Amino acid sequence: MELLHAVATRRSIRHFTPDPVPVADIVAILEAGRFAPSGRNSQPWRFLVVRGDDPRRETLCAHTKYARILREAAFAVAVFLDREAAYDPVKDHQGIGACLQNMLLAAHALGLGAVWIGEIINQEPAVTRALGLDADRYALMAVVAAGHPARPGKSARRPLEELLLEPLHGDEA
Amino acid sequence: MELLHAVATRRSIRHFTPDPVPVADIVAILEAGRFAPSGRNSQPWRFLVVRGDDPRRETLCAHTKYARILREAAFAVAVFLDREAAYDPVKDHQGIGACLQNMLLAAHALGLGAVWIGEIINQEPAVTRALGLDADRYALMAVVAAGHPARPGKSARRPLEELLLEPLHGDEA
Repeated sequence: MELLHAVATRRSIRHFTPDPVPVADIVAILEAGRFAPSGRNSQPWRFLVVRGDDPRRETLCAHTKYARILREAAFAVAVFLDREAAYDPVKDHQGIGACLQNMLLAAHALGLGAVWIGEIINQEPAVTRALGLDADRYALMAVVAAGHPARPGKSARRPLEELLLEPLHGDEA
Repeated sequence: MELLHAVATRRSIRHFTPDPVPVADIVAILEAGRFAPSGRNSQPWRFLVVRGDDPRRETLCAHTKYARILREAAFAVAVFLDREAAYDPVKDHQGIGACLQNMLLAAHALGLGAVWIGEIINQEPAVTRALGLDADRYALMAVVAAGHPARPGKSARRPLEELLLEPLHGDEA
């Protein structure tokens, strides 16, 4: 899928068919996340993949009001900040956002759908601990739930004019 | 450019030729940023474009050790968080990161190069104030410097195995 088209047409997908996703597609999505930029190239993101009947799916579900989405998803990627690789909260969180966006775009380009679940981090550090991870070292940053789309996404965006702090004029002659 | 290829081949570009960039390409890059996901779809990003002999180019240069890059760039996009649209620091910063990544990918797909300058926000709120903006409302999040690449980028990435908190096995039979 062409990049500019992918960026403009990707939307959060919250309903999935029961069809499985090949592990090669999951790897391609994680690979996309791997290539995100980060401050000082610190690459502080860490991934935990939950799929099939992995009991940690219900662990995640117990910590979010979006359990229905996580139960429908073919797989979920829990994305953590590794505090041993962290250096600045604002820049680390921005880099994690770039990593998440790469994964969402990759899912879309592969014909899959995905949604970034941020609300689950309101349950930090309990959710990280419940997953059996060292919550002093790892901080859950988001969960990406993904699968084959059962319904299109449809969120709107503000026009560019509202985002520009001043008008952008055309090329001068 | 195909999305997965773009994601894997994009690198920070820090050297630019003097060639100008048409405003249509700048708009395409901003449009890509506009389509990023954000918590509650709050779209808290705001853009200020600096190009040509705009005196604010030197204002930016005075607040970063990367002034050489900003002077070489055909244009720069200063990306701000609008605190009136903000709702959660971690999620807002992540969303801004997704927005920045969309812009970096779009620049790459258009055959341009770009670099995310994060170090300049160490000079907040002075830099926002020096740009003549309301620093109580707007917080500089990063500056994207962009133009025609004069040298390739080359930063390395850790292998996926180092990012996975546990091995990812192939599809079961």
